[in-house]
Amino acid sequence: MDINEFQKMMKQLYFSRDAERGQEKTLAWLEDKVQELREALQEGNVKEARKEFADVLAWLASLANVVGIDLEKAALSKYDNKCPKCKQNPCDCPF
Amino acid sequence: MDINEFQKMMKQLYFSRDAERGQEKTLAWLEDKVQELREALQEGNVKEARKEFADVLAWLASLANVVGIDLEKAALSKYDNKCPKCKQNPCDCPF
Repeated sequence: MDINEFQKMMKQLYFSRDAERGQEKTLAWLEDKVQELREALQEGNVKEARKEFADVLAWLASLANVVGIDLEKAALSKYDNKCPKCKQNPCDCPF
Repeated sequence: MDINEFQKMMKQLYFSRDAERGQEKTLAWLEDKVQELREALQEGNVKEARKEFADVLAWLASLANVVGIDLEKAALSKYDNKCPKCKQNPCDCPF
């Protein structure tokens, strides 16, 4: 599924409450989900980690909807089959 | 672009150094990028926010590559055109 299509699905499912909640609280939810992803990974709980990856992506898309940014366009305008810094594929930046 | 295709692009570009850096430090980078996204949004800097959305997605994909999780499968197995909690579209969960 396209990144854009996923963002649109999140919009259809959640935009009404995302808009009402607003940027700050949606950011806080995204941060919570990253924390939960950290915990699942540190516990080595792969099943839970899969759900948390889903949640981080979902909340990132919700946040993009709240602020009116196209996540796929944003991603591809920075990462376009080459490293944005060294312009190589694979990346050849010095460590 | 598919979520999966984006993850594969990140793998091609960065997997060698992502794998060397490992889970913990890649998680830390993801957290930093979420923080930078927060700062850009709070400053109302839309141009910068677009780049930070790109970076959060990129680092989420890198982390998924490090731990061997398919981000698109994970996302669609939880969010499948209905809210995973109330099973409605749009979501009808109580606040």
